[in-house]
Amino acid sequence: MDVTVNRPEIVAEIAALFERYEQALIEKDVAVLDATFWDSPHTIRYALAENCYGFAEIHAARDAADPPPGGTKEARIRLEILTLGSDFATVNLEFKPRGKAGIGRQSQTWMRLPGLGWKVVSAHVSILPIGT
Amino acid sequence: MDVTVNRPEIVAEIAALFERYEQALIEKDVAVLDATFWDSPHTIRYALAENCYGFAEIHAARDAADPPPGGTKEARIRLEILTLGSDFATVNLEFKPRGKAGIGRQSQTWMRLPGLGWKVVSAHVSILPIGT
Repeated sequence: MDVTVNRPEIVAEIAALFERYEQALIEKDVAVLDATFWDSPHTIRYALAENCYGFAEIHAARDAADPPPGGTKEARIRLEILTLGSDFATVNLEFKPRGKAGIGRQSQTWMRLPGLGWKVVSAHVSILPIGT
Repeated sequence: MDVTVNRPEIVAEIAALFERYEQALIEKDVAVLDATFWDSPHTIRYALAENCYGFAEIHAARDAADPPPGGTKEARIRLEILTLGSDFATVNLEFKPRGKAGIGRQSQTWMRLPGLGWKVVSAHVSILPIGT
């Protein structure tokens, strides 16, 4: 198995998909949000306000979301993309939440799936309280 | 690429490694904790009290940790293991934190790396405040 770390062209693919997703979060573009995640009962998204098991729950939370103008992220602190080989990636972003104390953390696990392309199969977003 | 979902023998491998890791967290068995994570500057662990970038920071946080008797998890709520093919897995655990309000969430991304075997390459643990 090829697990070459951070081939530039693979990192670039993930970076572009990640930016598209972040913009869709701000704009509540549910079609793009849905297209980013694997349409499977196995997909999990632990989010800032709920835990979603399976694509249907993830989609319902997108529909119900009411993001503030500019989105829930006020600023990025640190973005790390890791790719291993050509079909696997993680994205981890540390960020300043808008209008909230603490440090935001966003983690995504991406797989390039046959016939589907790159999809997030697992995601976790949380706030680390400051001073704990 | 073979991405067969949840082959029983692969799920069993990950389940055993996960239980070993959970026991090591309770016992503060740093050797097992270290052996579970990929020894790389690219490994990230967003934890309950800190954000660790790279294996050295993850190891230092293990050394500094002071887990309560029985560990930080009081009870499991929901454990989900997903394997795709024979070399990729995610583990997501929802749990009741010991002595804290909220819902714990633990996410791990595992890869079977040539010459190293199964390793966690990215992890995220957080508390979802109740009522948010």
